[in-house]
Amino acid sequence: MWADLEPVGRDPRGGYRRFAWTDTDADLRAWFDAEAARRGLSTTVDRAGNQWAWWGSPGRTHQGVVAGSHLDSVPSGGAFDGPLGVVSAFAAVDLLHERGHTPSRPIGIAHFGDEEGARFGVACAGSRLLTGALPVDRALALTDAGGVSLGAALAHQGRPVPAPDPDALERVGTFVELHVEQGRALVHDDAPIGVATEIWPHGRWRVTLAGEANHAGTTPLADRHDPMLELAALVADARAAAARHGVLATVGKVEVDPNGVNAIPSEVRAWLDCRGADPDAVAAVLADLARFAPVGESWTAATVFDPALAARLSGVLGNAPLLPTGAGHDAGILSAAGIPTAMLFVRNRTGVSHSPAEHADTADCHAGVVALADVLAELTR
Amino acid sequence: MWADLEPVGRDPRGGYRRFAWTDTDADLRAWFDAEAARRGLSTTVDRAGNQWAWWGSPGRTHQGVVAGSHLDSVPSGGAFDGPLGVVSAFAAVDLLHERGHTPSRPIGIAHFGDEEGARFGVACAGSRLLTGALPVDRALALTDAGGVSLGAALAHQGRPVPAPDPDALERVGTFVELHVEQGRALVHDDAPIGVATEIWPHGRWRVTLAGEANHAGTTPLADRHDPMLELAALVADARAAAARHGVLATVGKVEVDPNGVNAIPSEVRAWLDCRGADPDAVAAVLADLARFAPVGESWTAATVFDPALAARLSGVLGNAPLLPTGAGHDAGILSAAGIPTAMLFVRNRTGVSHSPAEHADTADCHAGVVALADVLAELTR
Repeated sequence: MWADLEPVGRDPRGGYRRFAWTDTDADLRAWFDAEAARRGLSTTVDRAGNQWAWWGSPGRTHQGVVAGSHLDSVPSGGAFDGPLGVVSAFAAVDLLHERGHTPSRPIGIAHFGDEEGARFGVACAGSRLLTGALPVDRALALTDAGGVSLGAALAHQGRPVPAPDPDALERVGTFVELHVEQGRALVHDDAPIGVATEIWPHGRWRVTLAGEANHAGTTPLADRHDPMLELAALVADARAAAARHGVLATVGKVEVDPNGVNAIPSEVRAWLDCRGADPDAVAAVLADLARFAPVGESWTAATVFDPALAARLSGVLGNAPLLPTGAGHDAGILSAAGIPTAMLFVRNRTGVSHSPAEHADTADCHAGVVALADVLAELTR
Repeated sequence: MWADLEPVGRDPRGGYRRFAWTDTDADLRAWFDAEAARRGLSTTVDRAGNQWAWWGSPGRTHQGVVAGSHLDSVPSGGAFDGPLGVVSAFAAVDLLHERGHTPSRPIGIAHFGDEEGARFGVACAGSRLLTGALPVDRALALTDAGGVSLGAALAHQGRPVPAPDPDALERVGTFVELHVEQGRALVHDDAPIGVATEIWPHGRWRVTLAGEANHAGTTPLADRHDPMLELAALVADARAAAARHGVLATVGKVEVDPNGVNAIPSEVRAWLDCRGADPDAVAAVLADLARFAPVGESWTAATVFDPALAARLSGVLGNAPLLPTGAGHDAGILSAAGIPTAMLFVRNRTGVSHSPAEHADTADCHAGVVALADVLAELTR
């Protein structure tokens, strides 16, 4: 399976560039269909555009146990974030077949679209559309860096206008997302597999720093309104505030107008990502940055995964460590929609993710497949 | 003339986007040819791609007096920087005709291509190619933000490979560039027109700040190698060093990889523009920034315009103020190539340039035309 995925959506700057509703995305969807067909699984696409493959026939009174994740990436992203969960789900189904397991309930594999939000700016757009957490009108109006709207991108790919799909959700009794760990807690715990307890509250803010465009070679320092100086202050202040309040804050995206070597910028736009275990601490960081007038683009409250399910899966996996995460996931969206949900993390030796250097050892990936198969077997006993 | 130029190359973000060797550039060249034809001036294109219109026939033993400037712009540039000099040259020729002036030497109007360097990164590329200051091989290999080389852009526009053109230079006995002032010295002097004494030494440096791409939501602050923090330090340190040494320093252009909201950048690239009257002070700023390892992209030593010519023109213009400038110009390149050269500046009430807000009062623009006509009359008496 990896061999077929490996060449899809290579980023010329390294790693992967698998953005939603591109031709690359269509190739990833064709890959999913082919893997499902190879195993005789029936496939459907929900009204929000997410793909599902089923072993058995789920229904409202015969809900399935679903494993899955996403296939898209950030720019210059890694090979594991997302695809590891989908590949491992197919491999776990293979392993259950080999073991002669007869599931008491249908087993599904899900591929959620547009998880990273790398193109249109809203993370988990596929699962949010599915549950209704992202209004359709707002989604259709989102635009990418080239000014193409999500609505136009869908039309260009021959896709229908999306909609929430409660019928698709009702087929899901339990959802389990396996994901490469983004961090090194499992390295410290010396364990290949962990079980998630919660997703930290997290948000994104946009900061617009207005200046006055002028010639860099003729404008005295005292006459300048240079927003690049404000950007420098924002970056430094955000880091200091994050350290002070014990949370994470990052300025990872910056746009400069007109971005000329000999022009004082007319405007600099920056995006702030801030998250941590304590939402009050995140709010304190934002309060410290109030003079930059940050405008909220998204906010997701803490998501606590079903504690009994997490404890049960940890037990099935030989008391696998329980750990929180700072990263958002489709599992968080489904959990917030009331579906009993769990996450498994696969150890990441360097902790690096969202980078071409993202990696999990092959042995740990195999351990992940076995763990996911064990979990699916337990839940469909 | 302004009415024909006004719609060419509008930037959707405001002002003008007139980049070298684009279709917009071709429109500007057609405008120049049409204005020359309307006046019965003969036109030539030199081997470096610059346009010339002639009243009379210049030669090695019958050198002309040439006025001119450029028509290209920075991104979101103003309407005056460049075009004012070319439009005023045509208008000054009209005025000399009206006055019944019979020039003793040919009078030329020049349009130098690619002065801003906004597309390929090298300012005054047209005049530098003409004089040989920019080697052809280096020019052809320059690339724009889309990866298109200057060589490919020329070929796409059906233009030949450029070359230095000593024959074209030999036709120029004196060059006079009229330009909107970039600054407010003439406002303080209460004078509509000034004469340039020199162009400050100026340079551009590229700074590459390496980091380690990682997830913004899961990487502890202590584990980060975030180059955005280094950018903040560079911007703040450059400003402080410029103030300390009494020169100008600007970070106007920044590129971030991968530039994702939830990704710690793998690399940030920034460009530093630094200039001032004293080259040792510029060197001191760069020395203060040594830890950022700036790499020089261009350096232009001070250009002192022919002092006798400047004094003569100031006298012709009723003792117009003499002033230095921090901005590079084609006039500086021609002066450095040994051609007696002068510049006239037209007052700019706000001092703003390289911006849609760039402006010169109509009365001052008319004064500029009269001044240029007076100067051309004096030099072709």
